Amino acid sequence: MNRAMISFILGWILLCLGALMTLPLAVALIYRESAGISIAVTMLISLALGLLMTVGRRPKDRTLYLRDGFFITAVTWIVISFIGSLPFVFSGAIPHLVDALFETVSGFTTTGASILSDVESMPRCLLFWRSFTHWIGGMGVLVFLLSLLPLTGGTHVNLMKAESPGPQVEKLAPTVQSTAKILYSIYIALTLLEIVMLLLGGMSLFDSVTLSFGTAGTGGFGIRNDSIASYSTYCQNVIGVFMILFGINFNFYFYLLLRKVQRAFDMEEVRMYLWIVGVAVLAIALNIVPIYQNGWLALQRAFFQVSSIITTTGYTTADFDLWPEFSKGVLVLLMFVGACAGSTGGGIKVSRCLILMRTMRKELKRLLHPQSVEKISLDGKPVAHETLRSMNVFMVTYILVFIVSILLISLNEFDFTTNFTAVAATLNNIGPGLNLVGPTQNFALYSSGAKLVLIFDMLAGRLELFPMMLLFSKQTWRRF
Amino acid sequence: MNRAMISFILGWILLCLGALMTLPLAVALIYRESAGISIAVTMLISLALGLLMTVGRRPKDRTLYLRDGFFITAVTWIVISFIGSLPFVFSGAIPHLVDALFETVSGFTTTGASILSDVESMPRCLLFWRSFTHWIGGMGVLVFLLSLLPLTGGTHVNLMKAESPGPQVEKLAPTVQSTAKILYSIYIALTLLEIVMLLLGGMSLFDSVTLSFGTAGTGGFGIRNDSIASYSTYCQNVIGVFMILFGINFNFYFYLLLRKVQRAFDMEEVRMYLWIVGVAVLAIALNIVPIYQNGWLALQRAFFQVSSIITTTGYTTADFDLWPEFSKGVLVLLMFVGACAGSTGGGIKVSRCLILMRTMRKELKRLLHPQSVEKISLDGKPVAHETLRSMNVFMVTYILVFIVSILLISLNEFDFTTNFTAVAATLNNIGPGLNLVGPTQNFALYSSGAKLVLIFDMLAGRLELFPMMLLFSKQTWRRF
Repeated sequence: MNRAMISFILGWILLCLGALMTLPLAVALIYRESAGISIAVTMLISLALGLLMTVGRRPKDRTLYLRDGFFITAVTWIVISFIGSLPFVFSGAIPHLVDALFETVSGFTTTGASILSDVESMPRCLLFWRSFTHWIGGMGVLVFLLSLLPLTGGTHVNLMKAESPGPQVEKLAPTVQSTAKILYSIYIALTLLEIVMLLLGGMSLFDSVTLSFGTAGTGGFGIRNDSIASYSTYCQNVIGVFMILFGINFNFYFYLLLRKVQRAFDMEEVRMYLWIVGVAVLAIALNIVPIYQNGWLALQRAFFQVSSIITTTGYTTADFDLWPEFSKGVLVLLMFVGACAGSTGGGIKVSRCLILMRTMRKELKRLLHPQSVEKISLDGKPVAHETLRSMNVFMVTYILVFIVSILLISLNEFDFTTNFTAVAATLNNIGPGLNLVGPTQNFALYSSGAKLVLIFDMLAGRLELFPMMLLFSKQTWRRF
Repeated sequence: MNRAMISFILGWILLCLGALMTLPLAVALIYRESAGISIAVTMLISLALGLLMTVGRRPKDRTLYLRDGFFITAVTWIVISFIGSLPFVFSGAIPHLVDALFETVSGFTTTGASILSDVESMPRCLLFWRSFTHWIGGMGVLVFLLSLLPLTGGTHVNLMKAESPGPQVEKLAPTVQSTAKILYSIYIALTLLEIVMLLLGGMSLFDSVTLSFGTAGTGGFGIRNDSIASYSTYCQNVIGVFMILFGINFNFYFYLLLRKVQRAFDMEEVRMYLWIVGVAVLAIALNIVPIYQNGWLALQRAFFQVSSIITTTGYTTADFDLWPEFSKGVLVLLMFVGACAGSTGGGIKVSRCLILMRTMRKELKRLLHPQSVEKISLDGKPVAHETLRSMNVFMVTYILVFIVSILLISLNEFDFTTNFTAVAATLNNIGPGLNLVGPTQNFALYSSGAKLVLIFDMLAGRLELFPMMLLFSKQTWRRF
């Protein structure tokens, strides 16, 4: 492996992370909070390490193979999670390192699962940092770096491939840098739009910004103990709509910008995604009408929760753990489906589900007509054989990680529903599960060992398994 | 499709079924039970229909394509389940048709899930019929027919393919008929051996025979309300060992008969299966020692339950719903793994799991070495591309059926663990699940609609999905 290049890129990531910490530091200064010191110290550590690893160390060989891309991605995410958790530890807000790490990984991976039972008692600068990690992790730190750095060499698409979600990554522009720039511009524009919309609804600036960070990254950290439940109906609806928007494949917006409206709406994944949302909202609304005694309210609650779960955000306006089993079943199912590829959402992704369904239909047809030769296509283009294969492996690996995680955390002796949804909620980067990890609960009850398993699941879910799995391969380490 | 041939084979199946009913009828005569009348009436119906469909109707074109094989298999299993449930309805032992159908499908598919809370009050002839359905369904009714009928034409392997479990079906002998004969001979010999072993332990003849039927088919219907718990330790151990034996790929015994001992023990699936059993028994035994306060007893309980669950039999000697979450987790996992291909057990099958794991390892390797070309092999032979493909589709279909089933039965408003394990226990043909469908409970609580879903799952599980899925294809029906 290209050790020099790996360390060089990691150094740049640490410089970026240090630079990004100026925002929470500014918040600390505005509110005159002493916790700002812990942020400043962390910032210095990050910058110092970054400088050590970059200054005068520009490597000559800048080739990165896919395996390097995967490796850098895995290591980067682990390192920034460690550094990112330091403000919580230094300030004493979350004294235990594993807890702080859990909270930070949950932030960067845009999971939104928390070990805190009382977020309202946190200093504002740390609440800001917590939500900001969602925003940074949503589009990806390496993608952020790529948008800034003119790293020459055609192999940097491998960095993007490793960090961007979905079965295939399309380059929107000729170079990786410009693609990354386009993605981040759309991301920033949509985030600003949401902040403005929330401000118009009378929400305070602090709340608007932090909640928009959580929506944009499809993260889900709230800044009130009841998540979004105590905000106005207008604000809830704005957040509900923006969650849906951030769960859409960003290529959709790119096509809109190019005024290729037809092409944007021809994207099968986006249509399927909106269709699933529609059906799920109606099914759940009908199922929960008896609880709310009001069709309109039921529809609103159903819309917000479906939007929050399918995009893997995890905000809540109602305790869906009290809903009927059917509604809970639909929500658990949506946890797995997830959002569109190329969005900030997690889960298995709509396009993968779509391709899997088509593979199944095709193979069943082949049983009837053994001679038939049919290609599986998406958006009118045939799906590459390579993509199909790696997708199948993705599914098997996914199931394997799922099973092993449940077995390991079941040593904590909580009930099956709790364990099952805890893994579902972390591996799919959602946040809340059911029962003991339900919307009104948190993950503090698990032991440190179980938390480490869930931390792994969050990272594996965000990076789509392979980068994290590679860390377990002997060959990866033999190459050093 | 070959309609004449389909009806002809179905007719023969009905004749076989009628003939097989002489056994429960004999039991009724021995114990002078009036319920025997309902068996006699059913027998006459089955024989009359069978004669109508076969006499003078031998079709000229006897070609059967794989789709015909699948179709006949699906229809056969539905028809025999209907006919087989009539004695329960006629005698009033299970008055409701859906309940009787559930019990009979559970019998033929060797699931062993029951809607009865008090089996001990049943007439002995019906108890015998109930356990006998396990034995008939275990090796397969079509395989039974094939062992008797000298159906000429080389395409009958398609009938066997459709009914025999596993990713690939090996012909042990040059003709389908002789292969079927070998399989049934091994099956009968092992069953007789178990009966003798149980008789030696002082069990009554009736109990020995019915419990051996349940073991041989890996079914699990008990004839006492506490399943196997009240029998002697010796008898429990005999049943435990024989469950393991019936879960082994029958090719293993065939090789042993041919004195190819080395080749038998070289079968990777069998070795993996025994290895999984060993690890699971140890893990659970260690986990439940605190409950039983006795290492030996814990080991015995763990062995019996692991053996019962991995072979998808479903007998119980202890209420494992009271065991720690970790042990329950391991058992739920084993429910999915299932027994060996080519055995009477259900589940996903060890060989499929083995191949899936190898596919995953191979693809992960390919990420590191994109140029590597590695074949996936089992028992030293490369696995056909076709097998790999249909296996992937099997997995996706499996997950789909699983999800839809859970959603549908969750309309009954039982908890997630109950619904999840109810589907797991029926789709994998096991029997008991956890919570409300746990070892001391039964499936009576579900509504008729939910029972129909679970009936479908049992059939889909036993026939490995595709035959049942084909019934949903428009094209299947268009061909009539």
